[in-house]
Amino acid sequence: MTGDIHSIPVMRAGIDTYRQPVVYMREDCHLCRAEGFSVLTQVEITHGQRSIVAALNVVTDADWLPPDTAGLSEAAWTALKADDGEFVTFSHPEPPASASAIRSKVYGQRLDAAGCQAIISDTVAHRLSDLDLAAFITACAGDRLDIAETIALTRAMHGAGKTLDWGAGLVLDKHCVGGLPGNRTTPIVVAILAAAGFRIPKTSSRAITSPAGTADTMEVLAPVALDIAAMRRVVESEGGCVVWGGGLDLSPADDLLIRIERPLDFDSDGQLVASVLSKKAAAGSTHVLIDMPVGPTAKVRTEAAARTLSERLHAVGKAIGLSLRIHVSDGLAPVGRGIGPALEAHDLLAVLRRAPNAPMDLRERALDLAGALLDLAEANGGQGRETARNLLDSGAAEAKFLSICEAQGGFREPGSAPYHSIETADVGGAIREIDNRRIAKIAKLAGAPGRKHAGVRLHARPGDVIDAGQPLYEIHAETQGELVWAQDYARSGVSPFVVGEAP
Amino acid sequence: MTGDIHSIPVMRAGIDTYRQPVVYMREDCHLCRAEGFSVLTQVEITHGQRSIVAALNVVTDADWLPPDTAGLSEAAWTALKADDGEFVTFSHPEPPASASAIRSKVYGQRLDAAGCQAIISDTVAHRLSDLDLAAFITACAGDRLDIAETIALTRAMHGAGKTLDWGAGLVLDKHCVGGLPGNRTTPIVVAILAAAGFRIPKTSSRAITSPAGTADTMEVLAPVALDIAAMRRVVESEGGCVVWGGGLDLSPADDLLIRIERPLDFDSDGQLVASVLSKKAAAGSTHVLIDMPVGPTAKVRTEAAARTLSERLHAVGKAIGLSLRIHVSDGLAPVGRGIGPALEAHDLLAVLRRAPNAPMDLRERALDLAGALLDLAEANGGQGRETARNLLDSGAAEAKFLSICEAQGGFREPGSAPYHSIETADVGGAIREIDNRRIAKIAKLAGAPGRKHAGVRLHARPGDVIDAGQPLYEIHAETQGELVWAQDYARSGVSPFVVGEAP
Repeated sequence: MTGDIHSIPVMRAGIDTYRQPVVYMREDCHLCRAEGFSVLTQVEITHGQRSIVAALNVVTDADWLPPDTAGLSEAAWTALKADDGEFVTFSHPEPPASASAIRSKVYGQRLDAAGCQAIISDTVAHRLSDLDLAAFITACAGDRLDIAETIALTRAMHGAGKTLDWGAGLVLDKHCVGGLPGNRTTPIVVAILAAAGFRIPKTSSRAITSPAGTADTMEVLAPVALDIAAMRRVVESEGGCVVWGGGLDLSPADDLLIRIERPLDFDSDGQLVASVLSKKAAAGSTHVLIDMPVGPTAKVRTEAAARTLSERLHAVGKAIGLSLRIHVSDGLAPVGRGIGPALEAHDLLAVLRRAPNAPMDLRERALDLAGALLDLAEANGGQGRETARNLLDSGAAEAKFLSICEAQGGFREPGSAPYHSIETADVGGAIREIDNRRIAKIAKLAGAPGRKHAGVRLHARPGDVIDAGQPLYEIHAETQGELVWAQDYARSGVSPFVVGEAP
Repeated sequence: MTGDIHSIPVMRAGIDTYRQPVVYMREDCHLCRAEGFSVLTQVEITHGQRSIVAALNVVTDADWLPPDTAGLSEAAWTALKADDGEFVTFSHPEPPASASAIRSKVYGQRLDAAGCQAIISDTVAHRLSDLDLAAFITACAGDRLDIAETIALTRAMHGAGKTLDWGAGLVLDKHCVGGLPGNRTTPIVVAILAAAGFRIPKTSSRAITSPAGTADTMEVLAPVALDIAAMRRVVESEGGCVVWGGGLDLSPADDLLIRIERPLDFDSDGQLVASVLSKKAAAGSTHVLIDMPVGPTAKVRTEAAARTLSERLHAVGKAIGLSLRIHVSDGLAPVGRGIGPALEAHDLLAVLRRAPNAPMDLRERALDLAGALLDLAEANGGQGRETARNLLDSGAAEAKFLSICEAQGGFREPGSAPYHSIETADVGGAIREIDNRRIAKIAKLAGAPGRKHAGVRLHARPGDVIDAGQPLYEIHAETQGELVWAQDYARSGVSPFVVGEAP
């Protein structure tokens, strides 16, 4: 083939398509005409040793893209690592090796280890399109992955990224399946376990669809975007950490699949288990506690679903060599008072500081989890919860948490938002429940998690009896406009607080 | 809600994402921050009575998009019909009504009529994302749609667009399942049936992945982009037409589904039947002949597959009131000599003109099909093929074809490409087969279908015995660069001609 026909210079288009490599070319580009590229074609782009597959979008009428130049979306730009104006080569990609594995699964056959391997390595190499990934996820929805397939998928996902090596000894971890708003137990559990002398190098995620992820909340209190070397230094000196896992390349396939899973929102026990346990294995964990809240608006909705999921977690955990314990908890309502990064940070600090107004439900949940993890690690007769309470009540957990924050780059006291409004009850009565989705949406409209101090602070909980006009919750915002906007939404429909007759 | 917070002006971004509505916003856009929009969010955009759902791409570092302005992809721009600079309103879309129908199907439940209706109307309203559509298509792959579901889907697709009304009397149609390269029988069949006094208002498609569609080939000979009124005038005066169906809004859901089906490339008898028959019903057809080539590289690969598909076509045809006949034909090789719009136009004109060098296989196929369609329409005892041959041999079909071309806007003699190269045999022997995909790719690299005169002309066919150095095929191109490029590809790997020992 003639080299110069296939090469044109690239530029950064400055368009974020969220992890999807897209290449922008003008319709009069000689390469499009010559190659027969047209819109939506998957195009292979090669630069030195690197090669990616991108979707083509055709620029029909715009000045920003010069003739015979290819614009790259952020994901394509990052993956290809070319310089502005450098010539790269374009071709038609061979169909990805995993296409036939996906096709078989779609037609109802079982996936074997080689098939899982092919799908995951093509995912990580950006050789599968969004549509291919959606087809794969759809074919695995519900209970369409059996235990053996789940094990194979977990191993493939673990194998596709880095693994942290902590040497000999126990490495503890915890994970919550389907968070309730405000359920920010992780920093407390890490502090207690590290204070007990265990190693617990916790990696957490940022919010994708919720008003805060653990990494967002922790970032209010200390830096979290540590690299592996920095994380290791913290763990070596303090025993534990709470850092953002997104930059560490642990199970990168998981991040790419989540991008497609979230909008589709199908339940798949197999994919859930592979996602969670591949990340834990990649983090080098040996002992993992799974918090599984069960409730009608939680991720796991019934006791029966909790049992099925637990069996699968145990089977896969055993196959990949993890000691696993599952803690089923009440998932009927949000936890604590704050919803939003800083508001949740205040709650967990109050628990660690044993403040008189600390939310008791958050404290009790954290102690349950820390106790269960201690029992798992020590394999003793259930003294864990008492040990955990002693470490919290003595101030040892607080001191450890502050040391971890300092080691991560410095503790900072959480601030608060300048704009507040108090939302009150229209009618009196007993609070039956709080609509988790609606209250989370109000927190997000107020600016969470992007605005650290924005969110919602609850003044009442299910079971409380209130009078008309009594405060139910506050909206916190960093700008007047966002406050008004969250208020408008909050007041435009039914209240998130469901109130019944007082008993 | 406060109107001005939710409105910003729009501009045309000039980016073709192929039917996917995309909105481009800057990351510092007040609306993104206020609404909590981030990349990949589905955003509802409202302008007067119109409302679309678009995917958000975030412009991080580019000058072409002014602050607090939304750029719209071509599909979004066309659907919304706003003017440059006009203010439109942005909001979070409600989940589409059909999401639960798709979810049920994914989990293995059957689709009912209401579910099909919801999915198709949300598809047409652009309320389903590409990922949702991919999930729907995946859930229907293989034989996962039963007959009742196929009927419901066909009716929903038919109901979602316009229907042509031709008044009382027969309206004939034909369709080929999975075209072979060069299998351009349609204009000949239309000419014969119209010459026989029947009404055959044929709508055809352009190529999506092949070197030519019927509309591309016909456009070499006459205008094909007629609106419904112009098409009706042609049919009223001539009995038949061959026009491009893409602009007529017949079964628009089909076009939107095909956009996702093509790259996924799963076989689904149910979706195939719903696609074909919804279009026929929308075109107002009463009697439909289906050409079904069977062969290892055709769409239908085995006799058994042909039987299953035929049963389904008959059942659905009956349910929606179509008289249907299926003609199974040999699908082992390309048809005729030319591959590419003008080259195929030369072939079919030669058949209509009874030229001595007319490709006999194309002639015989067209007569088989015209005969079968006459038999279906007249419900008599199989005289159709003889009638068809008489109409072709007498010149009546040629005269009718020219009249149709004139009525569509004027007949034009096909031209030919200025650049040719002759590709010869490396070794002598008997030609066993021709790799359809490889020969089609060479035609596309030479410029077909975008360059009307480009493509491939075969000099030999399976069964021919050739000597080394003897011409196998010619590449035709409109530019020297494209000729060289197609040649480079043609000569870089194995020949598309599989040659064995002479018998």
